[in-house]
Amino acid sequence: MKLDRHSSIPLYAQLRELIMERIQSGQYGPGEKIPSEMDFCKELDLSRPTVRQAISELVSDGILEIHKGKGTFIAEEVERILIPHFTALSFSFLNLNSYEDIGLRPIKLLEADKETDKLFRFPENQAHPGYWLAEWPLIFKEQVIGNCQSYIPVQIFPELGQSITVGKRMIDVKSNKYAYLPQKGSITLCSRPAKHKEASLLDIPRRSYIIACEGQLFARSGHVCEVIRVIFRPDLVCLEIN
Amino acid sequence: MKLDRHSSIPLYAQLRELIMERIQSGQYGPGEKIPSEMDFCKELDLSRPTVRQAISELVSDGILEIHKGKGTFIAEEVERILIPHFTALSFSFLNLNSYEDIGLRPIKLLEADKETDKLFRFPENQAHPGYWLAEWPLIFKEQVIGNCQSYIPVQIFPELGQSITVGKRMIDVKSNKYAYLPQKGSITLCSRPAKHKEASLLDIPRRSYIIACEGQLFARSGHVCEVIRVIFRPDLVCLEIN
Repeated sequence: MKLDRHSSIPLYAQLRELIMERIQSGQYGPGEKIPSEMDFCKELDLSRPTVRQAISELVSDGILEIHKGKGTFIAEEVERILIPHFTALSFSFLNLNSYEDIGLRPIKLLEADKETDKLFRFPENQAHPGYWLAEWPLIFKEQVIGNCQSYIPVQIFPELGQSITVGKRMIDVKSNKYAYLPQKGSITLCSRPAKHKEASLLDIPRRSYIIACEGQLFARSGHVCEVIRVIFRPDLVCLEIN
Repeated sequence: MKLDRHSSIPLYAQLRELIMERIQSGQYGPGEKIPSEMDFCKELDLSRPTVRQAISELVSDGILEIHKGKGTFIAEEVERILIPHFTALSFSFLNLNSYEDIGLRPIKLLEADKETDKLFRFPENQAHPGYWLAEWPLIFKEQVIGNCQSYIPVQIFPELGQSITVGKRMIDVKSNKYAYLPQKGSITLCSRPAKHKEASLLDIPRRSYIIACEGQLFARSGHVCEVIRVIFRPDLVCLEIN
């Protein structure tokens, strides 16, 4: 790429693209120092404000970083934790082989609520004994990177709460229930500001953006056997989708 | 839920949860007006600052909205556009049956760059004739909700750019190339601040959060035949994952 002084694209924007190209081509690598403003002025015969504008935009894009007294550097990509093969079933509680090592919080018994009933496709206003809520954090290197909530209908698993409280093994909790275990699922993923509780669970400022997933897991029987709500810290996590 | 004056949980936090419960149970529906601060004070025997704190937190969570002179209302969820059955292949260019209606921008021929070469698993420093870049916006109801970029190696599809420029049908572009069409893929999804160009493509303020996907599509032959980079406006889109 060469700068074109007759183009309708302003020179600072052309310089910005030129620097981007040099980064993408590997001429400037992550963590490396780039030439100074003066160097760019000389090399490309540009004015200082033009160079400054290009660099300041790249800084505000998070592509360059100014280290005071040292110069301008190519920002190093934050290494995110990859959640491999992410699917609707990735954070199913019922699909776990064991809940021993996940930091499971005490199981709660929740009353029916309309929003969750809708996800379970329960007919409106039909009384039922509520859901078990299994909740656990996603932790990587001692840092909370997400939070999982799993709702399981008491109707289908009447003793789940008690069984887990007394430490029954997962294989025994699930025995004779194979028709009611998740086979497939459908979740929606969006990115939105964290609510109060979510921000404190993830240890981030309120209204920070999070990745939020919510949806249904279906059993062989066709019933919704589990509803999941999973949130992730987007600055720490990336999801692999196949 | 009842308020517990002997609990270690502050009363305003208990009230916040109580209001949340009433919303979830459907007692207060979306768009409905909730009782005034004074009503809550009387009903639950609370001080005005306690009620105000609970409500102001729910407002900052986006759950309640204050309409000046009218009262406090349950916020209506913004209706997002659902991208159904989202997979790595959802926005493949080579998998399209036709490119007529997608608003495809003119195909560009790009030089090899290190970052993209890595995604294609090309050996480092091996010269090759670059990639075709096919780029198109995702539009819903005349609003841009995302942007797709597809990189296709010139090596595998030497005439792609010319064929599309002259309006060749997709079926003809792909004829005799079936071994090189995407069969499966692996993309990573993360949420991060938009870069300058991305923000202007999506018509959002710079540094707004976007959902960004990047990854490889594999042909039957095992080769990476397409690299895709898709970005979405998270305020408008939600992805269904199965």
